[in-house]
Amino acid sequence: ANRSQAFGNRGMTLEADINATNTYYRDINKANIHKKPTPVQVVNVHYPRRSAAVITEGYFKQPSTTDYNGVYRGRHIDFEAKETKNKTRFPLANIHGHQIEHMKSITKHGGICFLIIRFSVYKETYYIPAETFFPFWDEQFNNGKKSIPYETIRCKGYRIPFHYQARVDFLAIIDQLYF
Amino acid sequence: ANRSQAFGNRGMTLEADINATNTYYRDINKANIHKKPTPVQVVNVHYPRRSAAVITEGYFKQPSTTDYNGVYRGRHIDFEAKETKNKTRFPLANIHGHQIEHMKSITKHGGICFLIIRFSVYKETYYIPAETFFPFWDEQFNNGKKSIPYETIRCKGYRIPFHYQARVDFLAIIDQLYF
Ligand SMILES: [Mg+2]
Ligand SMILES: [Mg+2]
Repeated sequence: ANRSQAFGNRGMTLEADINATNTYYRDINKANIHKKPTPVQVVNVHYPRRSAAVITEGYFKQPSTTDYNGVYRGRHIDFEAKETKNKTRFPLANIHGHQIEHMKSITKHGGICFLIIRFSVYKETYYIPAETFFPFWDEQFNNGKKSIPYETIRCKGYRIPFHYQARVDFLAIIDQLYF
Repeated sequence: ANRSQAFGNRGMTLEADINATNTYYRDINKANIHKKPTPVQVVNVHYPRRSAAVITEGYFKQPSTTDYNGVYRGRHIDFEAKETKNKTRFPLANIHGHQIEHMKSITKHGGICFLIIRFSVYKETYYIPAETFFPFWDEQFNNGKKSIPYETIRCKGYRIPFHYQARVDFLAIIDQLYF
Protein backbone atom coordinates (compact mmCIF):
# COMPACT_ATOMS: atom_id res chain seq x y z
CA ALA A 1 0.00 0.00 0.00
CA ASN A 2 1.02 3.56 -0.51
CA ARG A 3 1.44 5.93 2.35
CA SER A 4 1.32 9.67 2.63
CA GLN A 5 2.73 11.42 5.65
CA ALA A 6 3.46 14.77 7.14
CA PHE A 7 7.03 15.85 6.60
CA GLY A 8 9.06 17.80 9.05
CA ASN A 9 11.20 17.32 12.10
CA ARG A 10 12.24 13.71 11.85
CA GLY A 11 14.79 13.80 14.64
CA MET A 12 17.84 14.67 12.53
CA THR A 13 19.87 15.42 15.58
CA LEU A 14 23.25 16.19 14.05
CA GLU A 15 21.64 18.43 11.44
CA ALA A 16 19.60 20.23 14.12
CA ASP A 17 22.74 20.70 16.24
CA ILE A 18 24.72 22.09 13.30
CA ASN A 19 21.88 24.41 12.28
CA ALA A 20 21.67 25.75 15.85
CA THR A 21 25.44 26.21 15.90
CA ASN A 22 25.41 28.12 12.60
CA THR A 23 22.58 30.34 13.82
CA TYR A 24 24.62 31.09 16.93
CA TYR A 25 27.74 31.84 14.88
CA ARG A 26 25.71 34.27 12.74
CA ASP A 27 24.03 35.87 15.77
CA ILE A 28 27.39 36.70 17.37
CA ASN A 29 28.90 37.71 13.99
CA LYS A 30 31.51 34.98 14.18
CA ALA A 31 30.87 33.37 10.78
CA ASN A 32 28.23 33.22 8.07
CA ILE A 33 27.50 29.58 7.29
CA HIS A 34 24.20 28.14 6.06
CA LYS A 35 22.71 24.78 5.19
CA LYS A 36 21.85 24.76 1.50
CA PRO A 37 18.18 24.13 0.78
CA THR A 38 17.30 20.59 -0.26
CA PRO A 39 17.03 20.66 -4.06
CA VAL A 40 13.49 20.01 -5.28
CA GLN A 41 12.49 19.47 -8.89
CA VAL A 42 9.19 21.33 -9.19
CA VAL A 43 6.90 19.75 -11.79
CA ASN A 44 3.50 21.27 -11.11
CA VAL A 45 2.37 24.39 -9.31
CA HIS A 46 -1.17 25.40 -8.48
CA TYR A 47 -1.93 29.14 -8.21
CA PRO A 48 -5.00 29.72 -6.04
CA ARG A 49 -6.63 33.10 -6.55
CA ARG A 50 -6.05 34.56 -3.10
CA SER A 51 -3.18 32.67 -1.60
CA ALA A 52 0.36 31.45 -2.11
CA ALA A 53 1.37 29.17 -4.99
CA VAL A 54 1.20 25.49 -4.01
CA ILE A 55 3.63 22.93 -5.38
CA THR A 56 1.41 19.94 -6.16
CA GLU A 57 4.05 17.73 -7.75
CA GLY A 58 7.74 17.79 -6.92
CA TYR A 59 10.62 15.38 -6.43
CA PHE A 60 13.69 15.41 -4.23
CA LYS A 61 16.83 15.69 -6.31
CA GLN A 62 20.15 14.13 -5.39
CA PRO A 63 22.35 16.94 -4.05
CA SER A 64 25.39 17.39 -6.27
CA THR A 65 27.35 19.30 -3.65
CA THR A 66 27.67 19.24 0.13
CA ASP A 67 25.13 20.39 2.69
CA TYR A 68 26.81 23.44 4.20
CA ASN A 69 28.95 26.34 3.09
CA GLY A 70 29.84 29.89 4.00
CA VAL A 71 32.65 32.19 5.07
CA TYR A 72 34.81 32.44 8.20
CA ARG A 73 37.72 34.83 8.76
CA GLY A 74 37.91 35.42 5.02
CA ARG A 75 38.08 31.71 4.17
CA HIS A 76 35.51 29.72 2.21
CA ILE A 77 34.03 26.91 4.33
CA ASP A 78 32.39 23.79 2.84
CA PHE A 79 31.39 20.58 4.57
CA GLU A 80 29.17 17.53 4.67
CA ALA A 81 27.69 16.09 7.87
CA LYS A 82 26.82 12.44 8.46
CA GLU A 83 25.55 10.55 11.45
CA THR A 84 25.97 6.79 11.83
CA LYS A 85 24.54 4.29 14.30
CA ASN A 86 27.42 1.94 13.50
CA LYS A 87 29.66 1.26 16.53
CA THR A 88 32.81 0.13 14.79
CA ARG A 89 33.10 1.95 11.46
CA PHE A 90 31.84 4.65 9.11
CA PRO A 91 30.48 3.07 5.89
CA LEU A 92 31.67 4.99 2.83
CA ALA A 93 28.30 4.32 1.14
CA ASN A 94 27.00 7.23 3.25
CA ILE A 95 28.73 9.62 0.83
CA HIS A 96 28.06 10.00 -2.90
CA GLY A 97 30.77 10.12 -5.53
CA HIS A 98 29.68 13.50 -6.89
CA GLN A 99 29.98 14.94 -3.36
CA ILE A 100 33.60 13.77 -3.24
CA GLU A 101 34.23 15.34 -6.66
CA HIS A 102 32.77 18.57 -5.31
CA MET A 103 34.94 18.42 -2.18
CA LYS A 104 38.07 17.79 -4.23
CA SER A 105 37.24 20.83 -6.35
CA ILE A 106 36.63 23.04 -3.30
CA THR A 107 39.92 21.92 -1.76
CA LYS A 108 41.75 22.64 -5.01
CA HIS A 109 40.33 26.18 -5.13
CA GLY A 110 41.57 26.92 -1.61
CA GLY A 111 38.41 26.37 0.44
CA ILE A 112 38.48 24.77 3.88
CA CYS A 113 36.68 21.49 3.28
CA PHE A 114 35.85 18.72 5.75
CA LEU A 115 33.34 16.15 6.99
CA ILE A 116 31.56 16.12 10.31
CA ILE A 117 30.89 12.52 11.36
CA ARG A 118 28.88 11.64 14.43
CA PHE A 119 28.89 8.21 16.04
CA SER A 120 25.49 8.55 17.64
CA VAL A 121 25.90 5.54 19.96
CA TYR A 122 28.94 7.19 21.56
CA LYS A 123 27.58 10.74 21.23
CA GLU A 124 30.95 11.64 19.69
CA THR A 125 31.35 14.04 16.79
CA TYR A 126 34.51 14.27 14.69
CA TYR A 127 36.00 16.75 12.24
CA ILE A 128 37.74 14.95 9.35
CA PRO A 129 39.69 17.17 6.93
CA ALA A 130 38.67 16.39 3.35
CA GLU A 131 42.34 15.77 2.49
CA THR A 132 42.41 13.06 5.17
CA PHE A 133 39.19 11.50 3.91
CA PHE A 134 40.03 11.32 0.18
CA PRO A 135 42.61 8.46 0.36
CA PHE A 136 40.09 6.24 2.23
CA TRP A 137 37.47 7.04 -0.38
CA ASP A 138 39.79 6.40 -3.33
CA GLU A 139 41.20 3.16 -1.88
CA GLN A 140 37.79 1.45 -1.88
CA PHE A 141 38.00 1.30 -5.69
CA ASN A 142 41.42 -0.28 -5.43
CA ASN A 143 40.44 -3.30 -3.33
CA GLY A 144 40.37 -1.13 -0.22
CA LYS A 145 37.83 -1.22 2.60
CA LYS A 146 34.28 0.05 2.12
CA SER A 147 34.38 1.76 5.49
CA ILE A 148 36.66 3.69 7.82
CA PRO A 149 37.19 2.09 11.24
CA TYR A 150 35.99 4.06 14.26
CA GLU A 151 39.52 3.87 15.72
CA THR A 152 40.96 5.48 12.59
CA ILE A 153 38.48 8.35 12.81
CA ARG A 154 39.35 8.82 16.50
CA CYS A 155 43.01 8.88 15.57
CA LYS A 156 43.05 10.91 12.31
CA GLY A 157 40.06 13.15 13.06
CA TYR A 158 39.51 15.85 15.67
CA ARG A 159 36.85 15.47 18.33
CA ILE A 160 34.51 18.48 18.06
CA PRO A 161 33.70 20.03 21.43
CA PHE A 162 30.10 20.48 22.55
CA HIS A 163 29.12 23.84 24.03
CA TYR A 164 25.73 24.96 25.17
CA GLN A 165 25.24 27.40 22.28
CA ALA A 166 27.79 26.08 19.78
CA ARG A 167 26.57 22.52 20.04
CA VAL A 168 28.96 21.34 17.32
CA ASP A 169 31.74 23.89 17.72
CA PHE A 170 33.64 23.03 14.53
CA LEU A 171 35.18 26.51 14.25
CA ALA A 172 37.23 25.65 17.34
CA ILE A 173 38.93 22.96 15.22
CA ILE A 174 39.34 25.30 12.24
CA ASP A 175 40.97 27.91 14.49
CA GLN A 176 43.42 25.25 15.61
CA LEU A 177 44.19 23.91 12.12
CA TYR A 178 44.24 27.08 9.99
CA PHE A 179 44.81 30.19 12.11
CA ALA B 1 -10.49 30.85 -11.53
CA ASN B 2 -7.50 28.91 -10.34
CA ARG B 3 -4.86 27.77 -12.71
CA SER B 4 -2.33 24.99 -12.60
CA GLN B 5 0.62 25.01 -14.92
CA ALA B 6 3.80 23.24 -15.81
CA PHE B 7 6.81 24.81 -14.20
CA GLY B 8 10.19 25.05 -15.80
CA ASN B 9 12.16 27.17 -18.17
CA ARG B 10 10.37 30.48 -18.00
CA GLY B 11 12.95 32.43 -19.97
CA MET B 12 15.05 33.59 -17.04
CA THR B 13 17.79 34.72 -19.34
CA LEU B 14 20.23 36.24 -16.86
CA GLU B 15 19.93 33.22 -14.57
CA ALA B 16 20.43 30.83 -17.50
CA ASP B 17 23.49 32.80 -18.63
CA ILE B 18 25.01 32.79 -15.14
CA ASN B 19 24.33 29.07 -14.69
CA ALA B 20 26.03 28.33 -18.02
CA THR B 21 28.96 30.52 -16.99
CA ASN B 22 29.33 28.74 -13.64
CA THR B 23 29.19 25.34 -15.35
CA TYR B 24 31.93 26.49 -17.71
CA TYR B 25 34.04 27.81 -14.80
CA ARG B 26 33.69 24.42 -13.07
CA ASP B 27 34.42 22.46 -16.25
CA ILE B 28 37.72 24.26 -16.79
CA ASN B 29 38.53 24.15 -13.04
CA LYS B 30 38.58 27.93 -12.79
CA ALA B 31 36.14 28.33 -9.89
CA ASN B 32 33.48 26.39 -8.00
CA ILE B 33 30.33 28.50 -7.85
CA HIS B 34 26.75 27.23 -7.70
CA LYS B 35 23.25 28.58 -7.63
CA LYS B 36 21.63 27.65 -4.34
CA PRO B 37 18.47 25.57 -4.71
CA THR B 38 15.20 27.47 -4.32
CA PRO B 39 14.05 26.81 -0.76
CA VAL B 40 10.85 24.77 -0.62
CA GLN B 41 8.82 24.10 2.50
CA VAL B 42 7.72 20.49 2.11
CA VAL B 43 4.38 19.84 3.81
CA ASN B 44 3.24 16.50 2.39
CA VAL B 45 5.04 13.65 0.70
CA HIS B 46 3.51 10.61 -0.93
CA TYR B 47 5.55 7.39 -1.00
CA PRO B 48 4.41 5.11 -3.85
CA ARG B 49 5.41 1.49 -3.45
CA ARG B 50 7.72 1.20 -6.44
CA SER B 51 8.84 4.68 -7.31
CA ALA B 52 10.32 7.89 -5.99
CA ALA B 53 8.72 9.93 -3.21
CA VAL B 54 6.40 12.62 -4.57
CA ILE B 55 5.99 15.98 -2.88
CA THR B 56 2.23 16.61 -3.04
CA GLU B 57 2.15 19.82 -1.03
CA GLY B 58 4.95 22.35 -0.83
CA TYR B 59 5.46 26.10 -0.80
CA PHE B 60 8.17 28.39 -2.06
CA LYS B 61 9.98 30.09 0.79
CA GLN B 62 11.47 33.56 0.63
CA PRO B 63 15.25 33.12 0.26
CA SER B 64 17.04 34.61 3.25
CA THR B 65 20.39 34.80 1.49
CA THR B 66 21.60 35.46 -2.05
CA ASP B 67 21.30 33.17 -5.05
CA TYR B 68 24.91 32.22 -5.73
CA ASN B 69 28.04 31.41 -3.78
CA GLY B 70 31.28 29.49 -4.04
CA VAL B 71 35.05 29.78 -4.07
CA TYR B 72 37.55 31.36 -6.45
CA ARG B 73 41.32 31.62 -5.95
CA GLY B 74 40.82 30.91 -2.25
CA ARG B 75 38.23 33.66 -1.80
CA HIS B 76 34.61 33.21 -0.82
CA ILE B 77 32.28 34.51 -3.53
CA ASP B 78 28.65 35.55 -2.87
CA PHE B 79 26.28 37.43 -5.14
CA GLU B 80 22.73 38.18 -6.16
CA ALA B 81 21.59 38.63 -9.77
CA LYS B 82 18.72 40.78 -10.97
CA GLU B 83 17.37 41.65 -14.38
CA THR B 84 15.24 44.73 -15.01
CA LYS B 85 13.24 45.87 -18.02
CA ASN B 86 13.46 49.42 -16.74
CA LYS B 87 15.34 51.76 -19.11
CA THR B 88 16.31 54.52 -16.71
CA ARG B 89 16.82 53.02 -13.25
CA PHE B 90 17.15 49.93 -11.05
CA PRO B 91 14.29 49.84 -8.52
CA LEU B 92 15.56 48.91 -5.05
CA ALA B 93 12.33 46.97 -4.42
CA ASN B 94 13.93 44.18 -6.48
CA ILE B 95 16.09 43.32 -3.46
CA HIS B 96 14.88 42.19 -0.03
CA GLY B 97 16.12 43.63 3.25
CA HIS B 98 17.26 40.28 4.62
CA GLN B 99 19.38 39.79 1.48
CA ILE B 100 21.15 43.07 2.20
CA GLU B 101 21.72 41.99 5.82
CA HIS B 102 23.23 38.78 4.48
CA MET B 103 25.47 40.67 2.05
CA LYS B 104 26.68 43.02 4.78
CA SER B 105 27.56 40.00 6.92
CA ILE B 106 29.44 38.28 4.06
CA THR B 107 31.38 41.48 3.36
CA LYS B 108 32.26 41.83 7.03
CA HIS B 109 33.62 38.26 7.14
CA GLY B 110 35.90 38.92 4.16
CA GLY B 111 33.90 37.42 1.31
CA ILE B 112 33.80 39.03 -2.14
CA CYS B 113 30.21 40.16 -2.40
CA PHE B 114 28.43 41.91 -5.27
CA LEU B 115 25.31 42.26 -7.41
CA ILE B 116 24.95 41.44 -11.07
CA ILE B 117 22.37 43.75 -12.63
CA ARG B 118 21.22 43.39 -16.21
CA PHE B 119 19.34 46.09 -18.11
CA SER B 120 17.64 43.73 -20.52
CA VAL B 121 16.54 46.47 -22.94
CA TYR B 122 20.17 47.47 -23.49
CA LYS B 123 21.52 43.90 -23.16
CA GLU B 124 24.05 45.34 -20.68
CA THR B 125 25.14 43.52 -17.54
CA TYR B 126 26.95 45.25 -14.66
CA TYR B 127 28.96 44.15 -11.65
CA ILE B 128 28.19 46.33 -8.61
CA PRO B 129 30.38 45.75 -5.53
CA ALA B 130 28.19 45.25 -2.45
CA GLU B 131 30.07 48.08 -0.71
CA THR B 132 29.03 50.41 -3.55
CA PHE B 133 25.42 49.26 -3.37
CA PHE B 134 24.89 49.56 0.41
CA PRO B 135 24.81 53.41 0.62
CA PHE B 136 22.08 53.56 -2.06
CA TRP B 137 20.10 50.92 -0.19
CA ASP B 138 20.48 52.64 3.19
CA GLU B 139 19.69 56.13 1.83
CA GLN B 140 16.18 55.09 0.73
CA PHE B 141 15.18 54.96 4.43
CA ASN B 142 16.59 58.44 4.91
CA ASN B 143 14.45 60.21 2.31
CA GLY B 144 16.68 58.91 -0.45
CA LYS B 145 15.61 57.57 -3.83
CA LYS B 146 13.88 54.21 -4.19
CA SER B 147 16.00 53.37 -7.20
CA ILE B 148 19.49 53.74 -8.63
CA PRO B 149 19.70 55.63 -11.94
CA TYR B 150 21.00 53.69 -14.92
CA GLU B 151 23.69 56.35 -15.40
CA THR B 152 24.95 55.79 -11.84
CA ILE B 153 25.21 52.04 -12.43
CA ARG B 154 27.10 52.69 -15.68
CA CYS B 155 29.43 54.99 -13.80
CA LYS B 156 29.97 53.18 -10.45
CA GLY B 157 29.59 49.62 -11.74
CA TYR B 158 31.71 47.53 -14.10
CA ARG B 159 30.34 46.31 -17.40
CA ILE B 160 30.64 42.51 -17.45
CA PRO B 161 32.02 41.19 -20.73
CA PHE B 162 30.13 38.56 -22.73
CA HIS B 163 32.08 35.61 -24.04
CA TYR B 164 30.79 32.63 -25.94
CA GLN B 165 31.30 30.20 -23.04
CA ALA B 166 31.54 32.60 -20.10
CA ARG B 167 28.39 34.44 -21.06
CA VAL B 168 28.52 36.61 -17.93
CA ASP B 169 32.25 36.63 -17.29
CA PHE B 170 32.15 38.20 -13.82
CA LEU B 171 35.46 36.63 -12.78
CA ALA B 172 37.14 38.97 -15.27
CA ILE B 173 35.95 41.86 -13.06
CA ILE B 174 37.00 40.08 -9.85
CA ASP B 175 40.49 39.51 -11.30
CA GLN B 176 40.69 43.23 -12.02
CA LEU B 177 39.41 44.35 -8.58
CA TYR B 178 40.97 41.82 -6.18
CA PHE B 179 44.03 40.15 -7.72
MG1 LIG C 1 23.81 15.37 2.91
MG1 LIG D 1 17.12 36.02 -6.20
